[in-house]
Amino acid sequence: MIHTSFSGRLVMLGFGSIGQGVLPLILRHIAIPRERITIVTAEERGRAVAEEYGIRFVIEPATRENYRDLLAPLLGPGDFLLNLSVDVSSVALMRLCQELGALYLDTVVEPWAGGYTDPALTPSQRSNYAMREEAIGLREAMRGGPTTITAHGANPGLVSHFVKQALLDIARDTGAPVATPPPATDRAAWARIAQSLGVKVIHIAERDTQVSDRPKRVGEFVNTWSVEGFVGEGCQPAELSWGTHEKTLPPDGRRHGFGCDAAIYLLRPGASTRVRTWTPLEGPFHGFLITHNESISLADYYTVRDEAGRVLYRPTAHYAYHPCDDAVLSVHELAGKNWQMQPESRLMTDEITSGIDELGVLLCGHAKGAYWYGSRLSIEEARRLVPHNNATSLQVTVAVLAGVIWAMENPRAGLVESDELDHARILEICRPYLGKVVGAYSDWTPLQDRARLFPEALDESDPWQFGNIRVA
Amino acid sequence: MIHTSFSGRLVMLGFGSIGQGVLPLILRHIAIPRERITIVTAEERGRAVAEEYGIRFVIEPATRENYRDLLAPLLGPGDFLLNLSVDVSSVALMRLCQELGALYLDTVVEPWAGGYTDPALTPSQRSNYAMREEAIGLREAMRGGPTTITAHGANPGLVSHFVKQALLDIARDTGAPVATPPPATDRAAWARIAQSLGVKVIHIAERDTQVSDRPKRVGEFVNTWSVEGFVGEGCQPAELSWGTHEKTLPPDGRRHGFGCDAAIYLLRPGASTRVRTWTPLEGPFHGFLITHNESISLADYYTVRDEAGRVLYRPTAHYAYHPCDDAVLSVHELAGKNWQMQPESRLMTDEITSGIDELGVLLCGHAKGAYWYGSRLSIEEARRLVPHNNATSLQVTVAVLAGVIWAMENPRAGLVESDELDHARILEICRPYLGKVVGAYSDWTPLQDRARLFPEALDESDPWQFGNIRVA
Ligand SMILES: NC(=O)c1ccc[n+]([C@@H]2O[C@H](COP(=O)([O-])OP(=O)(O)OC[C@H]3O[C@@H](n4cnc5c(N)ncnc54)[C@H](O)[C@@H]3O)[C@@H](O)[C@H]2O)c1
Ligand SMILES: NC(=O)c1ccc[n+]([C@@H]2O[C@H](COP(=O)([O-])OP(=O)(O)OC[C@H]3O[C@@H](n4cnc5c(N)ncnc54)[C@H](O)[C@@H]3O)[C@@H](O)[C@H]2O)c1
Repeated sequence: MIHTSFSGRLVMLGFGSIGQGVLPLILRHIAIPRERITIVTAEERGRAVAEEYGIRFVIEPATRENYRDLLAPLLGPGDFLLNLSVDVSSVALMRLCQELGALYLDTVVEPWAGGYTDPALTPSQRSNYAMREEAIGLREAMRGGPTTITAHGANPGLVSHFVKQALLDIARDTGAPVATPPPATDRAAWARIAQSLGVKVIHIAERDTQVSDRPKRVGEFVNTWSVEGFVGEGCQPAELSWGTHEKTLPPDGRRHGFGCDAAIYLLRPGASTRVRTWTPLEGPFHGFLITHNESISLADYYTVRDEAGRVLYRPTAHYAYHPCDDAVLSVHELAGKNWQMQPESRLMTDEITSGIDELGVLLCGHAKGAYWYGSRLSIEEARRLVPHNNATSLQVTVAVLAGVIWAMENPRAGLVESDELDHARILEICRPYLGKVVGAYSDWTPLQDRARLFPEALDESDPWQFGNIRVA
Repeated sequence: MIHTSFSGRLVMLGFGSIGQGVLPLILRHIAIPRERITIVTAEERGRAVAEEYGIRFVIEPATRENYRDLLAPLLGPGDFLLNLSVDVSSVALMRLCQELGALYLDTVVEPWAGGYTDPALTPSQRSNYAMREEAIGLREAMRGGPTTITAHGANPGLVSHFVKQALLDIARDTGAPVATPPPATDRAAWARIAQSLGVKVIHIAERDTQVSDRPKRVGEFVNTWSVEGFVGEGCQPAELSWGTHEKTLPPDGRRHGFGCDAAIYLLRPGASTRVRTWTPLEGPFHGFLITHNESISLADYYTVRDEAGRVLYRPTAHYAYHPCDDAVLSVHELAGKNWQMQPESRLMTDEITSGIDELGVLLCGHAKGAYWYGSRLSIEEARRLVPHNNATSLQVTVAVLAGVIWAMENPRAGLVESDELDHARILEICRPYLGKVVGAYSDWTPLQDRARLFPEALDESDPWQFGNIRVA
């Protein structure tokens, strides 16, 4: 089904697991002549896929020095830059597109190469908080300009729409249905819904069970999506937004001292920081507190302020990620080497033999305890639905597709974050590709089964304190 | 080659990975009529192997109630009880053997079923420290009686002999060679050697890289030796001996308040506690601080006291275990379920496709920094050497064999711990089965590559402080 047609040029920057996976979706759902698409990437990887679809394939890594000269000739007013690369500054590209009048979508907010682990920067400067602040700092200048969507993949991205749907579900199920959902642009109205339901904590709770019969080798980092991307964010400080219900800042927790102040960071890599969470299939598990753009943007969006601007309500939001088992092992090995990257890496695709990506949002603290809403997509179904995807990538690529379509449908929205897109439209586009979409309540709390063998410092009076959730 | 001959009866209690692996070694190296051997075990597992060798196979789990009636008819003066079971109290068996005049060897000191995770016991009561104290409490009563070897497998066991060899190597290489090694019974002399070399820390540093092409399933605990044994010890408190160079007791560290006082415990499971260590092939890595008998016995053995009995010197000793990758994943999953055991378990044997067990001791703080001495045994070599073994089990089974031979050669030694056996004799028996036996110096310290991205509380003045080694 064709959702929209596009007469401009489309440049895809980067053609790794997400780029290759989204191309068939774009060609299936957007009417665009193939010769109007150009792939610009850093390496041979993906050439066969580009050729399969007859798309021009240019190898030329974008750098601080060349990105302008490289991209400006390919982009004019009404054209589209779809950034699916690593190592290229999102903000630099956003500015360039603004200048050229081109639409833009990114799945993260990335720095130039090395920016995630530059020891010359402070942890705060290496945070997603800082990168998001820089990106949204362009909001005013971009108002009414060509649409620039920041950080819209699965997470960040799709999960923001899951949160909206989850809020509406909880409202319905607790006897306070929302007759007409407010428009996405009405932050305050949405924030008041979360507040009135008493949502204290939002986890992006993900359990990837994809496995292969090819065991991880010593010195190899294995993942179901970008190894470079995951290692980058895993080495950034653990970040979470800091809800108004939280009583005690963790000893290693720090405020940034600038910007929206919705989030804190911990003085340690996210890949070394574990949190307790829950998904319907997996049940309770430990995930990594990997920093993500949505940990900050969600909480900023769902902040209720009084007239004086004082914060009355805000949830704690963060990622709780159980990557595929081989990635858990890879992280363990990486930590053992004090975060010096393994010499080899492998992005699992064809060798995957089974597994699902159970990706959703867990909203906690409301009248019904905890509610998980999300996608349960198996490798078999992902392969059946779209070529060149695994379960993890398809959740991302369909969200990229939806964001691209939204931008084409709303070409003068200026800078928008995921929470500002119409969730119903995005979910409508995505749903056929998300496998089983599930909403499930649970009586799970992070206090369950605790302190059985050893004493633990627990706050029994409020299960949803971060101190209860964090694994010490 | 036949090392000794034995005319008594031999009862093997338990016939899992170690029992099945040691049987061919016993038949190869000890002259004993097959009809004098009886296997008593709890389940069908291993019947085919017993039949292959023509050994009587009795299924009858030993319990608190029946163990006397079950075993007494099978054991008289000069007979041998080889305990390779789980869930049976070692101390109960030791007493029984003493009574019956039978020799005894165990690879651990085990409680009755459930003893490792009985919430009615304090962590100190569930510790290996407490179990060892109970066992060595029998020493006086057993003096001059039939030989009873406690805790002699690979580790505990073999590693005690590695420590002796490592001390002699370091002495030789630092210009203070030991002309005639003291007898194993001369604790004080051996302790003074360790002290004079300045050994501060002894790690049992193990990296098991065995993998298979059958990925771990969700809800399955996979290991290369007893799953039950590993889960049991993993849920006990983390334990380590506490060296005289240590400056600060960890906040969660506790002394037992009774017994030899060589060790402390942490108020948390060992399987949730990581430490930095090093092996020659793996380089630096994170291991689990799993409690082991040798963490305590080694430090007790290597304690130097003044005439008033005050402790002048003692090393910190503990296990730093990187089990096979599937076991790392299994531990991660188990922790996520708050230490409620997975419904399924699998002991990897025939499906192993490659890997080695790199098992040795790392002696640190002396003039040459760090020295690792141990065995590097591959799955291929283990299979070539002895049927029914993998690399992990063979390191254990050959040490069991050597202990059994030593007991037969020294039948009236009463209760002996591993450190009290003649290391040269044990290593002589074991060596043909240990693959490559390697001694390697290293300039590795736990301060290497630290605090690159985030500040860390480090004691730069002494790398070998436990606070530097522990992963926070
Ligand atoms: N929001 C989400 O849900 C989500 C999920 C997965 C991935 N991502 C992000 O999407 C991006 C792509 O992920 P992936 O899994 O496809 O990564 P990948 O590692 O598979 O591919 C990265 C691609 O970028 C190209 N590249 C590298 N350096 C470049 C440069 N200097 N100029 C141009 N191209 C360059 C590589 O050649 C490769 O084609 C990453 O930034 C990742 O973090 C977001
Ligand atoms: N010191 C070391 O280096 C070392 C290394 C590996 C194992 N071990 C120890 O050796 C023992 C055996 O290890 P494994 O890997 O063979 O274990 P396993 O789990 O493979 O086998 C255990 C055996 O004990 C039997 N058993 C269980 N309950 C019993 C009971 N009540 N009475 C009699 N038999 C019973 C089982 O049927 C099975 O045959 C464990 O205690 C383990 O901790 C020590």
